[in-house]
Amino acid sequence: METIFTEFRQHIEEISKLTDDEFEYILSHFVKKKFRKHQFLIQQDEPVKYEYFVLNGCVKAYTLDHDTKMHILQFGMQDWWIGDYQAYFKQIPATLYVDCIEDTEVLCLTLENREKLCTEMHKFEHFTRKKLNSGYVALQQRILSLLNSTPKERYEQLLVQYPSLFQKVPKQYIAAYLGVSRETLSRLNSVVK
Amino acid sequence: METIFTEFRQHIEEISKLTDDEFEYILSHFVKKKFRKHQFLIQQDEPVKYEYFVLNGCVKAYTLDHDTKMHILQFGMQDWWIGDYQAYFKQIPATLYVDCIEDTEVLCLTLENREKLCTEMHKFEHFTRKKLNSGYVALQQRILSLLNSTPKERYEQLLVQYPSLFQKVPKQYIAAYLGVSRETLSRLNSVVK
Repeated sequence: METIFTEFRQHIEEISKLTDDEFEYILSHFVKKKFRKHQFLIQQDEPVKYEYFVLNGCVKAYTLDHDTKMHILQFGMQDWWIGDYQAYFKQIPATLYVDCIEDTEVLCLTLENREKLCTEMHKFEHFTRKKLNSGYVALQQRILSLLNSTPKERYEQLLVQYPSLFQKVPKQYIAAYLGVSRETLSRLNSVVK
Repeated sequence: METIFTEFRQHIEEISKLTDDEFEYILSHFVKKKFRKHQFLIQQDEPVKYEYFVLNGCVKAYTLDHDTKMHILQFGMQDWWIGDYQAYFKQIPATLYVDCIEDTEVLCLTLENREKLCTEMHKFEHFTRKKLNSGYVALQQRILSLLNSTPKERYEQLLVQYPSLFQKVPKQYIAAYLGVSRETLSRLNSVVK
């Protein structure tokens, strides 16, 4: 087994312990792909074939509004799952773009294989549910933060939660994630320590 | 079986078909409770024992900021699940309030029973995962809408998505959900048809 998959196995085993055969079986349902910086994993209006587990690198999921202003829904770094989930679950064309902030390797899972694994292996469905629990809570916290936090508070929360983002991701993308202007972010950057 | 539970069974069976015994077994893990208008299901800083399935009535989950301004994270109407999920999953004190907009009956599920049912019954874990899939996508859409939609667009989206909310819920709560002032909402109300 390639060492690149060791962390993927650990990631699943934090929730569901697996035998070697079980892990190999799960892995056989994924396709590994490499993307270069700036390449697209998902393009708006195109079919969405996969959700992605990031092995290494960094991607962003976003929309562009009428003025081509970018709004970032999610980043994806090592060990994160990312995709256009609305389009993926409903099998409709993408409403998001997902592209690479740096060279990135991912494991790709079709919806058919996701459902197959969940049906065949209670353990995998358990893992998936537990990841969704955490993801659901994180999204609720983000909504509350958009509703009731100042840009400075949102910036500080992100810095505490994901310090590594600030190393990987250019500032204009952090601003597009927080829903603040680049100027506001620069001011915060010099104020918050 | 009380007829009040028929819809709960239908709600689960939209995803996972059940035998009578299976449904009775699931139901035996829930406690039914009644709350009067204005009563609290969850209070900030208190322990969070349950997540709630709304049998009838209407509740809201919210925070109050420093100025005691209300920010509504979620409404709960018939057939909706609601709770303070961060506190519930992590078993920490509540950061939200959940209270009744009208008299409400709920089914209450402890985290212990939720995990027990998911472990014992693959069907129930499947149901829970599928509900989480939809919930996850709905939260992502709400974030995108907070990031890139105007108050008018957010109002129209909510009207299309949940028309019955506008019958049940006073306008100031709709405003606190959309993240707009009550004055803005009144203006939208008279403009949008």
